[in-house]
Amino acid sequence: MMKIAMAQIPIISANCMKNFETMKQQIDFAIQKKMNLIIFPEMSVPGYFIGDTWEQSSFLKECEYFNQQISICSSHIDIIFGSIGIDWVKKNEDGRVRKYNSVYYASKGKFIINKKTNYPFWIKSLMPNYREFDDSRYFYDLRKLSQELSCYPKDLYEPIEIKFKNKKLQIGITVCEDGWSQDYTFNPFQQFSENFKHDFFVNLSSSPFTKGKKEKRETLFSSISKKIKTPIFYVNAVGVQNVGKTVYGFDGSSAFYSKKGETKRLGGFFNENLVTGEFHFDSQDFLCSNEDSKETDKSLKNIEEMQIAIEYIIKNCMQQWQIKKVVIGASGGIDSALSAVLFARVLGSENVFLINMPSKFNSELTKKAAYILAENLNCPYTSVSIESSIEITKQQLINLKFKNSSVIPNLTGLVLENIQARDRGGRILSAISATLGAVFSCNANKVELTVGYSTLYGDQAGFLCPLADLWKHDVYDLAQHYNENVYQKEIIPKETLEVVPSAELSENHNVLENKGDPIQYHYHDYLFRSWVEHWDRKTPEDCLQAYFDGTLDKLIGCESGLSLRLFPSAKSFIEDLERWWLCYRGMGAFKRVQAPPIVAVTRRAFGFDHREHIGNPLFTSSYINLKNKILNNNV
Amino acid sequence: MMKIAMAQIPIISANCMKNFETMKQQIDFAIQKKMNLIIFPEMSVPGYFIGDTWEQSSFLKECEYFNQQISICSSHIDIIFGSIGIDWVKKNEDGRVRKYNSVYYASKGKFIINKKTNYPFWIKSLMPNYREFDDSRYFYDLRKLSQELSCYPKDLYEPIEIKFKNKKLQIGITVCEDGWSQDYTFNPFQQFSENFKHDFFVNLSSSPFTKGKKEKRETLFSSISKKIKTPIFYVNAVGVQNVGKTVYGFDGSSAFYSKKGETKRLGGFFNENLVTGEFHFDSQDFLCSNEDSKETDKSLKNIEEMQIAIEYIIKNCMQQWQIKKVVIGASGGIDSALSAVLFARVLGSENVFLINMPSKFNSELTKKAAYILAENLNCPYTSVSIESSIEITKQQLINLKFKNSSVIPNLTGLVLENIQARDRGGRILSAISATLGAVFSCNANKVELTVGYSTLYGDQAGFLCPLADLWKHDVYDLAQHYNENVYQKEIIPKETLEVVPSAELSENHNVLENKGDPIQYHYHDYLFRSWVEHWDRKTPEDCLQAYFDGTLDKLIGCESGLSLRLFPSAKSFIEDLERWWLCYRGMGAFKRVQAPPIVAVTRRAFGFDHREHIGNPLFTSSYINLKNKILNNNV
Repeated sequence: MMKIAMAQIPIISANCMKNFETMKQQIDFAIQKKMNLIIFPEMSVPGYFIGDTWEQSSFLKECEYFNQQISICSSHIDIIFGSIGIDWVKKNEDGRVRKYNSVYYASKGKFIINKKTNYPFWIKSLMPNYREFDDSRYFYDLRKLSQELSCYPKDLYEPIEIKFKNKKLQIGITVCEDGWSQDYTFNPFQQFSENFKHDFFVNLSSSPFTKGKKEKRETLFSSISKKIKTPIFYVNAVGVQNVGKTVYGFDGSSAFYSKKGETKRLGGFFNENLVTGEFHFDSQDFLCSNEDSKETDKSLKNIEEMQIAIEYIIKNCMQQWQIKKVVIGASGGIDSALSAVLFARVLGSENVFLINMPSKFNSELTKKAAYILAENLNCPYTSVSIESSIEITKQQLINLKFKNSSVIPNLTGLVLENIQARDRGGRILSAISATLGAVFSCNANKVELTVGYSTLYGDQAGFLCPLADLWKHDVYDLAQHYNENVYQKEIIPKETLEVVPSAELSENHNVLENKGDPIQYHYHDYLFRSWVEHWDRKTPEDCLQAYFDGTLDKLIGCESGLSLRLFPSAKSFIEDLERWWLCYRGMGAFKRVQAPPIVAVTRRAFGFDHREHIGNPLFTSSYINLKNKILNNNV
Repeated sequence: MMKIAMAQIPIISANCMKNFETMKQQIDFAIQKKMNLIIFPEMSVPGYFIGDTWEQSSFLKECEYFNQQISICSSHIDIIFGSIGIDWVKKNEDGRVRKYNSVYYASKGKFIINKKTNYPFWIKSLMPNYREFDDSRYFYDLRKLSQELSCYPKDLYEPIEIKFKNKKLQIGITVCEDGWSQDYTFNPFQQFSENFKHDFFVNLSSSPFTKGKKEKRETLFSSISKKIKTPIFYVNAVGVQNVGKTVYGFDGSSAFYSKKGETKRLGGFFNENLVTGEFHFDSQDFLCSNEDSKETDKSLKNIEEMQIAIEYIIKNCMQQWQIKKVVIGASGGIDSALSAVLFARVLGSENVFLINMPSKFNSELTKKAAYILAENLNCPYTSVSIESSIEITKQQLINLKFKNSSVIPNLTGLVLENIQARDRGGRILSAISATLGAVFSCNANKVELTVGYSTLYGDQAGFLCPLADLWKHDVYDLAQHYNENVYQKEIIPKETLEVVPSAELSENHNVLENKGDPIQYHYHDYLFRSWVEHWDRKTPEDCLQAYFDGTLDKLIGCESGLSLRLFPSAKSFIEDLERWWLCYRGMGAFKRVQAPPIVAVTRRAFGFDHREHIGNPLFTSSYINLKNKILNNNV
């Protein structure tokens, strides 16, 4: 029997010193608990999302230094951890020093050497280059190394062999993506298992949370362990790391997968945890010994997962960025209300300042709703009018004359709307947060970001977009969840939940007359999602064909019959489709470049997971043909 | 003898229809000129920087449709072009349909089939995954295909074999990066040459301009052709494509490299061109027949290259984004003056609106300089004061009281400075450009963007940063170049060239008292460049060590002796170093996420070529040790 600990630790990007301290603490704790082996996640020392920091030699030396420091800690316990493996002689394909995403095994103060590669580490085989991942940009993998050495990848593999209580143990080593091999021509678990008999495998991961991933991951690893008839210790990180524009939470959810494919959920969801237990060689089973880990095996509803994830990500992000106070432009609408709740839970109500900024277009209804929200949450609250400043801007524009030109500025309604939005974000909220030593949040949701339905330097400004990966129906669901399940009372006012969503920037946005946004969320949420999130990304061509075939609602996943009800004629459908596609690929793309960082929770957050160019939106020739046929009744 | 045309065409991202039209035009022109073969650049049909558009099946079908359209054009001329090669049955490693970065050879209405792969295209071998490139994210390469098929990459290669005037011709096919193989374990030109005798090679490229690349490219390909003793037709695109945050120009510079390694520059620099000529089989030489192409073989000075590149990129960017008018906040300083010159040259003076926005802190000197600039350029000009608006904001902040909190806002000098900057960018320039149907430019230079020395929603706002890849000395050099060489008179006023660079946001920035920016450009330009642009990226650890060793000036490339003159004591050096490193990795990184698109001209533009996370800036443990030693005189 071997006592094994799984260290589900939070990892900080590029902060080797801090990560080492976290690891050291867990090692000491595991030694106290008489563990024989402790397993850490992928890239525990350097962090995973650190951008081009990998190009700094001094940073690489820092990593190596702390790798060594960990090996020194292995006198009384064996340590498996993920970190960077460096070959200072060889080159990466970009000409920089050779770097591998690696696993180290430290025992009695030394690293075990892989005799096949002569490296003191084991190399990740598969490199994810989709979504937010950039592995091939930085790391050489086992497959490339095998091409370099003119052999097969499996020729470079051997298990880690250790002697434990007179027993020879063989431990299989894999890293994160190595398990997700279904679309690769190389399957590490299977190929490594063919030549060796392993007592167990480890998989060290830095696998970020997105909606539905936890279930997919469990299904995957349980099927692997069953197939190779070998148990797997799956150890994933927690914590928050960002890729600049997009902020990810790592959900942990470390687990033991038995050789029969049973899943023992042990680490918990977004839970910092040292799971300890006994691995029995005969049964090849793992018996967990700490009580809190045993209890993590409960199912969470989707909305509960979402709540935990968003709160965890915001909280950790605030801590890393050392932000203690947040200012929120509270309009009385649903987005700012949900933002306020989230920040109040994370930072404490007293640190969340709600500012209502009315103009003559704002209704008593929404102003009151903003006030009630502040009272319900007990947040600092104030109201600052934008009327006098707007008036100055208006006068300056009306009086504007240019030397050397006879051009006369055209002060349209849309221009005036945007002036109001910028007066709120770029003038008042920016200035108030600066006087408070605070920052202000951007409350844009995913719909707004998709089609650029927000004003640059206005309501698109802020230090973070907590909601920008939530469709409007997700925003409502989460708001209702807080009222109904978390607080079990009306924290977000019913006025906010019931009022028609509206920008209230002109008389055309009068909520009392039920005039709101030009977006029909119960339909456009799903249409836009098909463009942004579907695996095979949909375009107007796909959507128009489906509308014509009567399958659009099914294709995009909205309520059945909705699209025909909203757009009885093909002409009206096409007008709407083209309007928003132009926004998504046109102004929307342009605005996203300047959007604040986004909290990622879906499979496709804007930013680094949705790489895009700015260009003129295009329609394929098939689309144009189909459209002409339909409009000319030639079909 | 074979008549060959090299089509140095501008390619538009993702606009297959437009790219096809461009190609068709060149094909017709080449047929008129009785050419036997026309060669187009890499990814001529779909464009190269198109982000995740590759995930849309409908877009892939659009590409295939236009690939076919081109083959139809090949009745009277053979056509080599780059485009996407799709295998709808196989998968990429992300699970999506298999895509290759490919070369097609169309002849007599059909594509030639590669008998080794059975595809109607030839596959790119090497995938750049550095800088702004993301090839492995989208494309499967010849090396991966060979691993899949358990063979060597060269086993999948054969030349294109055609019959021409009873002669059997063998044409070697490579794509862009295939020539830049020095850090790869596979060298396509060499390995392809080992088994086959080629009449000539083609290299189809989409290779963006950055400073110094043209010379490097010519040295490289001339050494290859010499080594393999085979001539190479190098055909590169022109045009402008962006990766969202970063805008690249493609410089063309297509050339013929003889088997002896001689370079014939034919395409010209940023020049749309159809190079035509005769390839003689015996001499294996290419004789160019069009006069303008023959004349492109002249050397440009670095500053001339820079001028051509920036003007070309801005001009094409404006055309693609359909922008005809630009508003510029003209402060009287050097950055806005250079911006004004650039846009005036590209759009015409009458479409560039200069707005001076004085407060009480702005000197008569700079106000006058802004006015003179407008007169010199004959641009529309006006002055809009920010005083009254600033006063309102100030009063609103002073009177601010919060319900549920006793916190009192702290209206510091820095807060007031930023309020002014945002009043200019987020209020006045935004509003004026909206009334004119224009956009406004962000005049930040690379120094400001490096350390975040600019205000979000203020002077960091705008639709494009034309100067954000130029250090301050580059800005001065280019400004002087315009006065001295381009206009040969004082267009940018001498006041602007001579005044100390200053934000003029408080009494501490009084230019008449020579009080300017806290940045010493003749030193910090070079320090920051070592952090951002050096191949082996420098950090405080490297810089402090070099300062201590007396080699810092050499390391960073500033004037010899400068760092010791500026920082006689280690303490003062360290204070400065840490101050700016904290800015670069801290607030600077945070602000860059929200920066407008950047015109790229160096090897390391911010944005997609400088991937980074936002985090707390870190100092390595070696740095901390060294610092402590130095400060405690323990060295």
